[in-house]
Amino acid sequence: MESKKKLIEPRTLKGFRDFTPDMMIPRERLIERISKVYRNYGFSPIDTPVLEYLEILSGKGSDETDKQLYQFQDHGGREVGLRFDLTVPFARFAAQHIGELGTPFKRYHLAKVWRGENTQAGRYREFMQCDFDTIGTTSVISDIETALVINDILEKIDLRSEATFTRFKIRLNSRKILNGLLEKLGLLDQTTQVLRALDKLGKIGRDAVIEEMITTASSTNDQANAILDVATLSGQPNSEILTQLEKTLAGSVLGEEGIATLRQILEAVVVAGIPEERFVLDVSIARGLDYYTGTIFETFLDDIPQIGSVCSGGRYDNLAELYTKQKLPGIGASLGLDRLFAGLEELQMVEKVVSPVKILIPFFDESLGNEYLKLAAILRRNGIGVEVYPDAKKLGQQLKYADKKGFVFAIVIGSSEFEKQMAQVKNLKEGIQREVSIANQAEELIHFFQQEN
Amino acid sequence: MESKKKLIEPRTLKGFRDFTPDMMIPRERLIERISKVYRNYGFSPIDTPVLEYLEILSGKGSDETDKQLYQFQDHGGREVGLRFDLTVPFARFAAQHIGELGTPFKRYHLAKVWRGENTQAGRYREFMQCDFDTIGTTSVISDIETALVINDILEKIDLRSEATFTRFKIRLNSRKILNGLLEKLGLLDQTTQVLRALDKLGKIGRDAVIEEMITTASSTNDQANAILDVATLSGQPNSEILTQLEKTLAGSVLGEEGIATLRQILEAVVVAGIPEERFVLDVSIARGLDYYTGTIFETFLDDIPQIGSVCSGGRYDNLAELYTKQKLPGIGASLGLDRLFAGLEELQMVEKVVSPVKILIPFFDESLGNEYLKLAAILRRNGIGVEVYPDAKKLGQQLKYADKKGFVFAIVIGSSEFEKQMAQVKNLKEGIQREVSIANQAEELIHFFQQEN
Repeated sequence: MESKKKLIEPRTLKGFRDFTPDMMIPRERLIERISKVYRNYGFSPIDTPVLEYLEILSGKGSDETDKQLYQFQDHGGREVGLRFDLTVPFARFAAQHIGELGTPFKRYHLAKVWRGENTQAGRYREFMQCDFDTIGTTSVISDIETALVINDILEKIDLRSEATFTRFKIRLNSRKILNGLLEKLGLLDQTTQVLRALDKLGKIGRDAVIEEMITTASSTNDQANAILDVATLSGQPNSEILTQLEKTLAGSVLGEEGIATLRQILEAVVVAGIPEERFVLDVSIARGLDYYTGTIFETFLDDIPQIGSVCSGGRYDNLAELYTKQKLPGIGASLGLDRLFAGLEELQMVEKVVSPVKILIPFFDESLGNEYLKLAAILRRNGIGVEVYPDAKKLGQQLKYADKKGFVFAIVIGSSEFEKQMAQVKNLKEGIQREVSIANQAEELIHFFQQEN
Repeated sequence: MESKKKLIEPRTLKGFRDFTPDMMIPRERLIERISKVYRNYGFSPIDTPVLEYLEILSGKGSDETDKQLYQFQDHGGREVGLRFDLTVPFARFAAQHIGELGTPFKRYHLAKVWRGENTQAGRYREFMQCDFDTIGTTSVISDIETALVINDILEKIDLRSEATFTRFKIRLNSRKILNGLLEKLGLLDQTTQVLRALDKLGKIGRDAVIEEMITTASSTNDQANAILDVATLSGQPNSEILTQLEKTLAGSVLGEEGIATLRQILEAVVVAGIPEERFVLDVSIARGLDYYTGTIFETFLDDIPQIGSVCSGGRYDNLAELYTKQKLPGIGASLGLDRLFAGLEELQMVEKVVSPVKILIPFFDESLGNEYLKLAAILRRNGIGVEVYPDAKKLGQQLKYADKKGFVFAIVIGSSEFEKQMAQVKNLKEGIQREVSIANQAEELIHFFQQEN
């Protein structure tokens, strides 16, 4: 007989994903490692609503983010939207709570954001960001700690082990370098035009950029060349870049400030024990031009730089100017978890884990149900996670399940084993097994697994 | 001079909340404890999109949830909605992936859900649910494990310490008890009418309920009385209730099945080491009448039962019938994190923590910036989280900050201390301080804090 109701097709929206355990377990492990780094530096977790008043969100990113905003009218007729990043909600949050929280304020926020953009490989409409910021201070200590946090997180991304990951570089710049040069050249009021031209470098090439600067930013040919020389400075040792910048920017207050800060960061990360070559000066990086005002960071994996920066950020003069008159300078960075994860998978740095525990107790003898549960309870009380198979099926079928889910051990106890108070502990990966006593509250078995861990 | 732009008022939507660190740190701690229990039993984490096709969500809860659904048209003209619980998305998820995942499948899902309902004390439009389910099996082992998981979670909710919490009861029933009685009375086809009448017991009283049953469910006066006698059975020792039920339901297959399962659960939890009185038979609980078909759980805190059940669930015959022809029986429960948290706060079981680390290094001497950072790096590498104050302000001001944020220790190092390689370690709670050496990679200081932990 046919079902009376028509079935609804079970499907997810384009650009949205389900996370099955094999995806979710390593993801949770990574999130845990990242959070631990944040907390170790004194960053506190916060959370904000998924939905905000539309006026909080719209016009805060770019035309692009406005267009991509998921927005609608709620039951009370309010215009609302789903957050498209964590920075705008944090600005609103800071304006609302900073009086009570006080400064300096260090927060992290790991949460999903939504953008109705065209989906591509590795681009989703629902994705997770991991932001951390220090606000209410202009101290270079915060610039340095931001660099250290980025480094510590990247060192922890190899999910196959606890080993330190080292194949990445953190690229460093300061917005004050270019601004210092423009100041020196008397072109500071042409910044927007200069940046607009520079932005096209990759597409139209150096000569055309120079031409545009001469036309739109009223620079001379020499000035345009000087700008391009500085703006493309990268690939040389940090000390050489610094020497060159010092020469070029001598006399510019902004420029000298920028150089001093970069020098302090580079010194401090070495003092903190990080290999010198991990941090690379690169004047060509210039992200978020309108927003950032000082130090800028981008982070690339050595083996797949083409996926782009996996962790980026920088210093800004005022976080929440749209919502409060209180000036909140700060520095922060954002880790794109989904992009990073795609990179880790490509680099085979994600261990496939389907079960959160390593040990299965097959339900071998129907009359022993309570004994299996009792043994499981004892193991769990001793910090050893264990799953009990719920049905008294054939052992082969249960071991097939164990194999599929990636269990490492099966504790097989039939009635004869139970009488002897012995368990057969099978190592499913190595195909070996040994007898272990379960007498005396399973102390030998507990010892066995504690050793194995 | 006035700012040119008008400020946007920083505010959140009604029924939505920001979580500041003092709220978020204990919340994360609770979530971590809960997740650990799930994982210890072999439940795997999953996640699903916040947005679903509207047809997946609408008509799946009640008229109430339909009305409260946040729904809109997305950029591609699709009708979409924000999930209102985690069960409907799990049903859709299971229908879509169970072939590849296999059964039995045990998952947990901790995530936010949204309902546009009228806000009241402790009721929010955005709130978090913690669900766990075992599907693809009808084994009583899963009923027992569900009971054990609920117990283990509740034992861990005292956030002031690691101590086992015991002041709660898990109430237990089976839908088969009442159905068994109706079967025996020949009234099984009147179930809906009987339940509708029973549902009004609190409001209209026993006599009126009996009258309604006689009118709408064509029961006799004796039958209606028998139903009410069984349906209100609670408050007696479990063994007495079981004896009474056995007598009343003798001969009913359904009823006997229900009694046998309840008996097995009550036996098994004692075998697993849980105090007998923790589980209380209560035939009067009857949640989710349409959905559940077997064992039902509700969980109450002894000291504030009035906040209602903090963890509820039960057994169902078919999870995903709207989306797939595959029959997926299972059992699960849901913990209402926000309600539980409100309860914990009322019971003062939440330790107020504002900082994720206990140690602050004040920035005491401007010339020692790198030394503070170096010491912090050494401590962090040894697993000791520490915050460095970013600005060289007056010590008093920094200690005030430390006090406000709940730091326990301040490591004060001025230039004279630094020369002697000694730090003044202040215990801010106890108002005492001692000198600790920071020589030899701060080994004495590391030892000091490892002892303190």
